[in-house]
Amino acid sequence: MTGDTRSRAVGIDLGGTNIKGGLVDRDGHVAVKKSIPTEAAGGAGHVIDRIAGVVADLLDEGGTAPDDVAGVCVGSPGPLDADRGIIFEAPNLGWRDVPLADELTSRLDFPVWLENDANAAAFGEAWVGAGKGRECVILLTLGTGIGGGIVIGGRLWRGVNGTGAELGHMTIDYDGPICGCGSRGCIEAFAAAPALVRRMRLAIDDGADSSLAGAFRAGEEVDAKRIYEAAVAGDATARREMEQTGRFLGIAVASYVNIFNPNCVVLHGGMVDAGDMLLGPLVDEMAGRCFESSRRGLQVLRSALRGEAGMVGAAGCAFAAAEGSA
Amino acid sequence: MTGDTRSRAVGIDLGGTNIKGGLVDRDGHVAVKKSIPTEAAGGAGHVIDRIAGVVADLLDEGGTAPDDVAGVCVGSPGPLDADRGIIFEAPNLGWRDVPLADELTSRLDFPVWLENDANAAAFGEAWVGAGKGRECVILLTLGTGIGGGIVIGGRLWRGVNGTGAELGHMTIDYDGPICGCGSRGCIEAFAAAPALVRRMRLAIDDGADSSLAGAFRAGEEVDAKRIYEAAVAGDATARREMEQTGRFLGIAVASYVNIFNPNCVVLHGGMVDAGDMLLGPLVDEMAGRCFESSRRGLQVLRSALRGEAGMVGAAGCAFAAAEGSA
Repeated sequence: MTGDTRSRAVGIDLGGTNIKGGLVDRDGHVAVKKSIPTEAAGGAGHVIDRIAGVVADLLDEGGTAPDDVAGVCVGSPGPLDADRGIIFEAPNLGWRDVPLADELTSRLDFPVWLENDANAAAFGEAWVGAGKGRECVILLTLGTGIGGGIVIGGRLWRGVNGTGAELGHMTIDYDGPICGCGSRGCIEAFAAAPALVRRMRLAIDDGADSSLAGAFRAGEEVDAKRIYEAAVAGDATARREMEQTGRFLGIAVASYVNIFNPNCVVLHGGMVDAGDMLLGPLVDEMAGRCFESSRRGLQVLRSALRGEAGMVGAAGCAFAAAEGSA
Repeated sequence: MTGDTRSRAVGIDLGGTNIKGGLVDRDGHVAVKKSIPTEAAGGAGHVIDRIAGVVADLLDEGGTAPDDVAGVCVGSPGPLDADRGIIFEAPNLGWRDVPLADELTSRLDFPVWLENDANAAAFGEAWVGAGKGRECVILLTLGTGIGGGIVIGGRLWRGVNGTGAELGHMTIDYDGPICGCGSRGCIEAFAAAPALVRRMRLAIDDGADSSLAGAFRAGEEVDAKRIYEAAVAGDATARREMEQTGRFLGIAVASYVNIFNPNCVVLHGGMVDAGDMLLGPLVDEMAGRCFESSRRGLQVLRSALRGEAGMVGAAGCAFAAAEGSA
């Protein structure tokens, strides 16, 4: 980043529940941040108005003149076309084929870019987070799905159509369960939150003792967080399924390590709060499966930017895009 | 490649049976080539003398002055340390911890580099072969093992310790057969030549009809080539096992496509001679498993440089290394 001297960029993390925005310095410091409800039910036009409002508020609160802003980057769930700024499908927003970048540009005075949310988080962690200054950072977002991001030499590798880095859709069992993507046995089908909930339900159906048995039988919505909390409170079945999730992730991480030989693998998303209960089995399983030569110096880390990784990373992507090196 | 004006480089493909060398132009054209027996039984010093002899002969026959040679790069099976020029282990040569680059430099007037053989082949295919001019080329070498190479933006991605791109050691069945690397269910354990031979033997032991039944029962050494030839000659069991090998490869290639979203996947090595019998099932299986968005424009190609990929690619690596961009 050399030519551009504008000191700030805006990063937006567009989620189904909240729009999170940050006015970010070139050192990755968040000068001002803001979070408002997405109000997705109001439709795409309404949501884009709200994003534009967040951008205006951030500049206002930050006392920042528009000509000191390198641009705005929106991190969004995909599939999307970052080059053309179009979101093809965002189920949690109910969107199809929304030309977000053009729509937002027409409401603002800055260049606008769009980025896959996992890519944005990966860029953020490699820029100023857990992987700061490292040559090769692999990021996994663990949640309803498993997203991925690949940073090599300070740049995102997105693939030639911009649709790569789908690390959650690497097969770990070719004859395994059907995945949401249509394939079988992707790591997402084993280790994303719904897979954990499903295994927990199956264990209880099979007669395993658990503090969550009543909730499952009553048809309550049990999420991964609740399973983790049960495990912490001493529920052996919940703990076993959390650990099993860690081992599945370790199988996949071993393959990423053999493929990329990265400096670090960063884990991001709510499930990572489970900490060592997930990470211990993950690292053990990985160590037994990947080349010792590629494990030398390798770090498996929790996200440092946590809930701000997507927002900060999107701002970093805006600085990079403004320099033409995104 | 800008500063260096030396017009030629030497690429060496160091194998257990033969040393293949080529004097190569900046456009990837092989001006002179030479192949001599490795004579590995003579020991490392003897083999390195023979490599130096090949280099001298190539320059002599090519009428090339030493000061017009950018350098020599040796493509070798690993594991190795390309930065320090040390081959840690080469079972087909009986070598351990051989400082090849230093030893060869002391016998020659040029800079010498060492490169993993699959990386060299990948560089060659991306430079002047099947993936010429493409932004992202993934190469698989299919043989006794499965090697890999990753070229992004004209440069090899080797990993931070130089030990990445081990594409043959991505898990496709976490509970699958033990792999030579110590893990389980790597694609190498399913689709390298020994796995094909093993499945063929099992099929015959289970009573499958095959023209190779007698050879297996007599304890003859049956290799992948012989199985392919039997398939071509109408052996239904051999054909089924070749096709199954293609499907296993397709499972792995789908994951590489989801991870890298490359322009092309290039298949290299003797088994690729089986052509559509292998490639048809590979592409079908892949198509059913990877994202359509990443399949757009994707090519699955046979090596264009074939037996010369390692040699030509090594010369390309020498040009790149001389420019400091390897």
